Amino acid sequence: MDHTGLLIILSSPSGAGKSTLARRLMDWDDSLRFSVSATTRPPRPGEVDGEHYYFIAPDAFRDMVRADQMLEHAEVFGNLYGSPREPVEKAMREGRDTIFDVDWQGGQQIRASALGGHVVSIFVLPPSLPELERRLRARGQDSDEVIAGRMQKSRAEISHWAEYDYVLINDDLDRTEADLRAILTAERLRRDRRAGLGAFVKKLMEDDA
Amino acid sequence: MDHTGLLIILSSPSGAGKSTLARRLMDWDDSLRFSVSATTRPPRPGEVDGEHYYFIAPDAFRDMVRADQMLEHAEVFGNLYGSPREPVEKAMREGRDTIFDVDWQGGQQIRASALGGHVVSIFVLPPSLPELERRLRARGQDSDEVIAGRMQKSRAEISHWAEYDYVLINDDLDRTEADLRAILTAERLRRDRRAGLGAFVKKLMEDDA
Repeated sequence: MDHTGLLIILSSPSGAGKSTLARRLMDWDDSLRFSVSATTRPPRPGEVDGEHYYFIAPDAFRDMVRADQMLEHAEVFGNLYGSPREPVEKAMREGRDTIFDVDWQGGQQIRASALGGHVVSIFVLPPSLPELERRLRARGQDSDEVIAGRMQKSRAEISHWAEYDYVLINDDLDRTEADLRAILTAERLRRDRRAGLGAFVKKLMEDDA
Repeated sequence: MDHTGLLIILSSPSGAGKSTLARRLMDWDDSLRFSVSATTRPPRPGEVDGEHYYFIAPDAFRDMVRADQMLEHAEVFGNLYGSPREPVEKAMREGRDTIFDVDWQGGQQIRASALGGHVVSIFVLPPSLPELERRLRARGQDSDEVIAGRMQKSRAEISHWAEYDYVLINDDLDRTEADLRAILTAERLRRDRRAGLGAFVKKLMEDDA
């Protein structure tokens, strides 16, 4: 039976495994779609429009915000970032869930939006902060200063854990993936999310001839 | 991490597979306990006190009701039936979930009780009413008249489907069992049900030395 498409908000500090988990979920269920953000910053080498981001001009971005076409948006280092509403509503009409990789501010805005009733929010915690820092260093991409900045941002992000429906501690990727699958399976079975249930029960009662 | 013990209300018309599903869940997770009802009716041959029912005297039953020691109770054909509160609270303190096999009236009373915030309610629908009747007849226990009465009660029971958190259509026992496991797994991961989460995050933030 179809369910009303959900808005799955997945938040975590950088390095807690969120991107890997989102990818695994989409491998598990290919009806899941990932919300591609729009941004006003220029593309970096290798970035594909519509895949990594929708790259749009500042004026066009601000027009979308004014027309309530962004579920959430924020300015970071002078660039605008946001989640376009239209692809999410299209997915919902098709009974498909959308995964949002957003921080606590994005999560708050989406929850407060007109689609807030369809949100399932999940926060992924690292098992420890030294472990988180180890994972960031293992990427080998960033200087000590950048890592210190990321760790500071991580602490701010973690401080918002209590705003989420579910909180997972990612000390084992397979276990956390299984937990996420259970959450999605269960949320789709909630009575108020099963689109055809009223009609099914009506037919059930009538077919008792 | 421990979670606060849940009250799992499993309701369905007779023959929709509820007892089989409850048994399977308890095979899957032996920390689950089944709420044994108290009753004032005399034991039938083979029934064991404390296993099938707690058999108690009408006066003792009414004393328990007055002392708010029954989470729900009802009179059926002159006999009293109820769910004792104390074993449920003990299980909750141990972080264990209790499964209740109760009808919609029992479900309503438990939801309205002081423990209502810990309730997860699940309604199991049969795929069709003729299929339900076929299952009842396949038991070979009951007369046509008794089966007609059960079918009437089933329709009344089904009419309350919209009061439940989750509604499952049991057209495949294995699938329905998997759905129930997902619901229990997810409900235990809800932030507000994870007993040690606040302390975990506090320690997480402090151990960043």
